[in-house]
Amino acid sequence: MSENSCGTTVPDDLAERAAALDAADGLAALRKLFTLDDTVYLDGNSLGALPRHVPARIAEVVEREWGELRIRSWSESGWWTAPERIGDRIAPLVGAAPGRIVVGDSTSVNVFKAVVGAVRIARRGPDGDARTEVVVDARTFPTDGYIAASAARLTGCRIVPVDPADPGAVASALGPATAAVLLNQVDYRSGRLHDLPALTAAVHAVGAVAVWDLCHSAGALPVGLDAHGVDLAVGCTYKYLNGGPGAPAFLYIAERHQGVFDSPLPGWTSHTDPFAMDPAYTPAEGALRGRVGTPDILSMLTLEAALDVWDGVPIEAVRAKSLALTDFFLECVDGRLGERLGTGLGEPGCPVRSLTPAEHRHRGSQTALSCADAPVVMERLIARGVVGDLRRPDVLRFGFTPLYTSFADAERAASVLVDVLAEVLAEPLTEAASGNSGVSTEG
Amino acid sequence: MSENSCGTTVPDDLAERAAALDAADGLAALRKLFTLDDTVYLDGNSLGALPRHVPARIAEVVEREWGELRIRSWSESGWWTAPERIGDRIAPLVGAAPGRIVVGDSTSVNVFKAVVGAVRIARRGPDGDARTEVVVDARTFPTDGYIAASAARLTGCRIVPVDPADPGAVASALGPATAAVLLNQVDYRSGRLHDLPALTAAVHAVGAVAVWDLCHSAGALPVGLDAHGVDLAVGCTYKYLNGGPGAPAFLYIAERHQGVFDSPLPGWTSHTDPFAMDPAYTPAEGALRGRVGTPDILSMLTLEAALDVWDGVPIEAVRAKSLALTDFFLECVDGRLGERLGTGLGEPGCPVRSLTPAEHRHRGSQTALSCADAPVVMERLIARGVVGDLRRPDVLRFGFTPLYTSFADAERAASVLVDVLAEVLAEPLTEAASGNSGVSTEG
Repeated sequence: MSENSCGTTVPDDLAERAAALDAADGLAALRKLFTLDDTVYLDGNSLGALPRHVPARIAEVVEREWGELRIRSWSESGWWTAPERIGDRIAPLVGAAPGRIVVGDSTSVNVFKAVVGAVRIARRGPDGDARTEVVVDARTFPTDGYIAASAARLTGCRIVPVDPADPGAVASALGPATAAVLLNQVDYRSGRLHDLPALTAAVHAVGAVAVWDLCHSAGALPVGLDAHGVDLAVGCTYKYLNGGPGAPAFLYIAERHQGVFDSPLPGWTSHTDPFAMDPAYTPAEGALRGRVGTPDILSMLTLEAALDVWDGVPIEAVRAKSLALTDFFLECVDGRLGERLGTGLGEPGCPVRSLTPAEHRHRGSQTALSCADAPVVMERLIARGVVGDLRRPDVLRFGFTPLYTSFADAERAASVLVDVLAEVLAEPLTEAASGNSGVSTEG
Repeated sequence: MSENSCGTTVPDDLAERAAALDAADGLAALRKLFTLDDTVYLDGNSLGALPRHVPARIAEVVEREWGELRIRSWSESGWWTAPERIGDRIAPLVGAAPGRIVVGDSTSVNVFKAVVGAVRIARRGPDGDARTEVVVDARTFPTDGYIAASAARLTGCRIVPVDPADPGAVASALGPATAAVLLNQVDYRSGRLHDLPALTAAVHAVGAVAVWDLCHSAGALPVGLDAHGVDLAVGCTYKYLNGGPGAPAFLYIAERHQGVFDSPLPGWTSHTDPFAMDPAYTPAEGALRGRVGTPDILSMLTLEAALDVWDGVPIEAVRAKSLALTDFFLECVDGRLGERLGTGLGEPGCPVRSLTPAEHRHRGSQTALSCADAPVVMERLIARGVVGDLRRPDVLRFGFTPLYTSFADAERAASVLVDVLAEVLAEPLTEAASGNSGVSTEG
């Protein structure tokens, strides 16, 4: 302990600081809602942890709703309306009013619906036929790029890549030929947060339609879809929303577009009267026209149960803790590097550098560190109970999920990381270069 | 009991006949693998019953694989390879070699992949640009028609409707402009079985690509995809395959097309090296290029477990029992009608008529009966423990799932049906017409 400038004592040891931050954390009690062990789990931005109450709910769905009620559950257990009901549960977390989100299908499939839908909306405007470009985040998680290219090909558009971290470059890429713009709110690799309000306004200024991918922001920070006038958005539910492996994604359709949203996947459950079995397609009103096939009930209802942990949790508090966690983690890495290697983070000779912006307004809820021999480093971290993930060739990703990550986790992760970095630095290169951390998951 | 023409005694009572047929049924022991009660469940063609061992497996997936191993399960628990592994489990049931089927997404999404993929394959041939027609089963379950229309719109084709029950009409509709042909092997409403080998040959004769929807045949009868040279096929896993509500569908890609299959949904998991995070899309080899987004693990592994009940069950035996069941059901309906109303099935004055062809070669695994006041009739059947479903306005569907339906079920269903028909006939029309059996599910 030491005295600060006000004369009061403050803990100067990072571990003590962590304990004090945890003691003051208003969200700390949420951790006990999850199944966790003594692992430091910093991969919730890839697969969220299991909420403790979920297994009992899944058992009920399987044994009672499927096993006993069987077909009756489509009405009696609320299966049929799950996509829009669960969408309404996600809505407040991303700043959407009820009736604007449906859940179902993978993120990739929803990107397809959204980009084709966006091109079609843009072409309804004056000079619509001249809109032949789909502008896409050049650093995007690959599936968005692949799917956008397919959507462009099928709608007679070409792809224009941009870096959303450079608003000037985005503005230069936009023009009267722009139909749709697909951007990520948070970069999956670097953790950079892009300026959704300003970029959406820039897209609208040229009469184009903005599609946002919220995979790395939904459940991590306030999004404000309605407030910022976003047109269409997609997001993942198995990262910060803890919906389970491969849980269904969601699609947001702004109210003003719901009457004209023209899905390229007009499955029967988006029909205004599905059980009429009408050979002619008439889309339902509202976000329901984003539905496609029969809802995947086991995954849907697992997600629905998982969302219970958000009851009464303001997303603003989550954001505040997220920034505090990533700040503290970087401070701990810097401090431990100084202790072990005599160099601060980013100083000359430091074996690791942060790819995640230091400024809060540019930071999502993860920290990405670049280093040599990253595969070996991540393999050893995992072996010592610190689970992040690797983005080849050289990026270590550490996701901070404020509902269950503690400041003590951040401190321990930083300490183990610096231990491993020091070890690897001391080894012959050939040995250290042999590791591989295996497969991870989307985003 | 009475003597037959050979002088031996045979049971002449239908209930006795049912008991004798059940006693001689080589598949009867499979019934105990399912969670069933005293309901006669004839809706397995909409939602298959729960195999008894599935809840324990789901609990393991959730509690151990997700809850404890978390992200490690993508490799350690075999999550990543589930789509093709489970495809290989389905393959023998539909006559496909390993490596030709992937599981994932809804039936609707797979119809989209298949129809767009089929058009693209057809256009690779000579005069490919002239192929501008997608021929579609005019009586199809609506989602196929809606999705095919979207696929046609996006690929510059027009839809040509045909009745696959009329091979001559199909042949007339086919020609040098035909790109793809989307047909159902079994009609969802009438239960009619279409001639897959002959129709596939007719499609090939004009250089077009045949896409078969197997939703009502997979798990009910031998399909012979490889043997009959089918190009592409999709199918459902929550009906006869008992995968659970909204379980993922499957996509078959014939070996000869795998190198050129060009998916309109080229999601990251169909990339040849997904974890390279390559901005350029290079499709994987084989059926894997039918994958799209991150696999929906809970539903996938539920399906995988559910498929265990098929171990050692020849699909030919399933077909033989299916035909015996529907034959016997129709015989029972006919017999009970005679007892109660003095009229045989299909005779003048009979209140019900069969839409399902009598000939085995034209019959799937369900019986569809048309009658007045069908909603009320089905509502009362369900209230008395006989669960079929309604296809508005006037069709009662009874699905026979040979793994767990008994001949006693068929007899009881027929008896209760005729009781209800007799009651409804005796009531004033206005009262009888007030019922509604509520929502059901796909197909």
